Amino acid sequence: MSKADPILEPLQSMANLAERVSQERLWGRLMEMARIGAIPGNGVNRQALSDEDIAARRLLTDWAQDRGFGVLVDGIGNLFLRRAGRVPNAPPILTGSHLDSQPRGGRFDGVYGVLAGLEALEALEDAGMTTDRSIVTVAWTNEEGGRFAPGAMGSMVFSGARQLEDCLEVRDAEGVRFGDALSDTLAATPDVEAVDFNFPLAGYVEAHIEQGPVLEAEEVPIGIVTGIQGLRWFEVEVLGETAHAGAAPLRGRRDALQAALAAIQSLNEVMHDELDTVRFTVGRFEVSPNTPNSVAGQVVFTIDLRHPDAVVLERLSEAVRPICEAAAGGCQVQVRETFNRLPCVFDQGVRGLIAESAQSLTLPAIPLPSGAFHDALFLNDICPTGMIFVPCEKGISHNPAENAKPEDLAAGARVLLLTLAKMAAESTR
Amino acid sequence: MSKADPILEPLQSMANLAERVSQERLWGRLMEMARIGAIPGNGVNRQALSDEDIAARRLLTDWAQDRGFGVLVDGIGNLFLRRAGRVPNAPPILTGSHLDSQPRGGRFDGVYGVLAGLEALEALEDAGMTTDRSIVTVAWTNEEGGRFAPGAMGSMVFSGARQLEDCLEVRDAEGVRFGDALSDTLAATPDVEAVDFNFPLAGYVEAHIEQGPVLEAEEVPIGIVTGIQGLRWFEVEVLGETAHAGAAPLRGRRDALQAALAAIQSLNEVMHDELDTVRFTVGRFEVSPNTPNSVAGQVVFTIDLRHPDAVVLERLSEAVRPICEAAAGGCQVQVRETFNRLPCVFDQGVRGLIAESAQSLTLPAIPLPSGAFHDALFLNDICPTGMIFVPCEKGISHNPAENAKPEDLAAGARVLLLTLAKMAAESTR
Repeated sequence: MSKADPILEPLQSMANLAERVSQERLWGRLMEMARIGAIPGNGVNRQALSDEDIAARRLLTDWAQDRGFGVLVDGIGNLFLRRAGRVPNAPPILTGSHLDSQPRGGRFDGVYGVLAGLEALEALEDAGMTTDRSIVTVAWTNEEGGRFAPGAMGSMVFSGARQLEDCLEVRDAEGVRFGDALSDTLAATPDVEAVDFNFPLAGYVEAHIEQGPVLEAEEVPIGIVTGIQGLRWFEVEVLGETAHAGAAPLRGRRDALQAALAAIQSLNEVMHDELDTVRFTVGRFEVSPNTPNSVAGQVVFTIDLRHPDAVVLERLSEAVRPICEAAAGGCQVQVRETFNRLPCVFDQGVRGLIAESAQSLTLPAIPLPSGAFHDALFLNDICPTGMIFVPCEKGISHNPAENAKPEDLAAGARVLLLTLAKMAAESTR
Repeated sequence: MSKADPILEPLQSMANLAERVSQERLWGRLMEMARIGAIPGNGVNRQALSDEDIAARRLLTDWAQDRGFGVLVDGIGNLFLRRAGRVPNAPPILTGSHLDSQPRGGRFDGVYGVLAGLEALEALEDAGMTTDRSIVTVAWTNEEGGRFAPGAMGSMVFSGARQLEDCLEVRDAEGVRFGDALSDTLAATPDVEAVDFNFPLAGYVEAHIEQGPVLEAEEVPIGIVTGIQGLRWFEVEVLGETAHAGAAPLRGRRDALQAALAAIQSLNEVMHDELDTVRFTVGRFEVSPNTPNSVAGQVVFTIDLRHPDAVVLERLSEAVRPICEAAAGGCQVQVRETFNRLPCVFDQGVRGLIAESAQSLTLPAIPLPSGAFHDALFLNDICPTGMIFVPCEKGISHNPAENAKPEDLAAGARVLLLTLAKMAAESTR
């Protein structure tokens, strides 16, 4: 190998840089975070703006401050860890994900992307390598939406897809206002600098567990995410009539639970897809009065519908209202759409840099779409964006049993680091 | 009419006694009780041992004490209003029902039977008529079971069908222990005398709105209740696997909500009855984690199954477990039976006295079974028991829209009064 070779020399230095990613540090931090909000079965309950979320933010802030990275927060609580670049006014490269979890979530969804981002900053620091652009690792607020619906509030507000004011009035199941929980959260980290929304970005890359079975089945450590399927959310309210379970003959009943059940059965038929690409889920189902000896007077259930093809998604969505109405018998039905996001396709350039980075580390990589919804969906609207997937056990996620291998997580962080380092060279943009 | 006629004279005095029932007093008290725990749409939320229940007990106690009736309470909070009879040690005649309501209940279910019983005592007092036996009006604790399951705890413990100790540990949805709520309730009426459970009774008669459509449709003001259909309660737990709504392909899912829905659909088919006599209700349905973007990992639903024929009820109940298991696909199913009560048939003698009383007032009356479950079910095990039904609007009950006519309610109270007066003559037993 010639010392002056202009192609091989940078490749060599990239491989050396990647070695600075510490599998042990990354895994240790993941396990330390997993203790915050730990639930039985290796799970985590660290919902947005809860005491557990605040504790996780505190720990992340401490780690960043200990290493001298700048820590900033915007008006919706998105937390930014900044390693300064050489060129003062160049828009930074952003990476990260979220610290919040589902009520019965796992140890890797979200938090891996944040800690892989922090690991990239640490590796650059360990290598003593200065980048042209600053590299910033972000923890977005309320990605999961399990407590305050809908999810991805932090990245939506940052990217301008939603107004902060609209989020503030959302309430959780206990009636707590998002705005009040946010104030408590911001008050718990008074030592971080405030920053405005939507500062200019040169690019965004998010690392995440796949939350699907493909990479594990294919025995490939790196997924280059091609895009994210579109998502529509509906809330269906079925209004019947409460009656006495013993006295009311079945024929005269207007049973909201039975009507909701018939509606879901009809939806199951319409959503059926031989290719198994359609994602149709009824995840929330609330009955009133919900006592054993009262016929249900009201049911509210949610529909989560996803597809990578915008035309198919639109066609299926259009069917929701008439099908629910037709199935409800004597009950009244109201269908409200609560979320609508078209499928997205990630930037070809970023996908190319991820592929190149994996190749330079001799890590097998395949392109694949994302079944789940991520903060990257919204960043894709405002800057060149990409995602890196790593395998997780049996594709299980949103579940305490969620699991991933330390070596796969480290491999993903290495590909992320090299991708970020390339994007942070001012000449690439 | 001969003055000395031994048949007509008592009939005449009975008609005079019945006139002492005041439709205005009874209706006024029903409306005053309906203000305690009032909810929109003319409904009532006065759940067992709640602040509202305590307030209703206080008001009832005040009314009884103002008129000089004895007020007693037993260890589970059953409240007894006693008008003393002539024969000191003769077992009394009991009447009454319950003050507690469903979370979204109406103004008449339960409270009507208590206030009709109080009205009978008032009428006897107004008439200056002394009975051989004491007549006691009872308000049973926790008939509805909406807050603390199962219902009819007061009458079950009184009649020996259940032990007080077993009830004390039951908790409501907020985790409040029945025993603690009971202590608070008892502490709120320190001025009433304690009495032991299961004192001997000479008979029990309960007045109640029909909670079904028959009397209104037939334009008959009095129903002579022949018996109460049997009741089986089941709790079905479906265990699946939580997964990400966007990432998990539908084919590999173990969706507890979809499995529960399939089980209920199969149960619907088995429970189908051309005669519309079977009462099959799924009234409670709880999903976990119950978020829009998580596949349900667990569902718990209840089954309330009733039939007047013990053999049919047994056959249908036997089908519950295998049907739920067969329908659940990849999910696990556990079926627990939480209540089992055979159908009951009321005492022929009491039914005869009710018929006689209605006839003496020239009120049309028909025999009919009770679709709903009542405290009388348990009293029937320990003494001659009967029930009087009055019409309610469209048969609607367990619903704020529950309604009844003042004149029908007064007619029912008059038939109750005469029946009690006859039963309280020592010679009749």
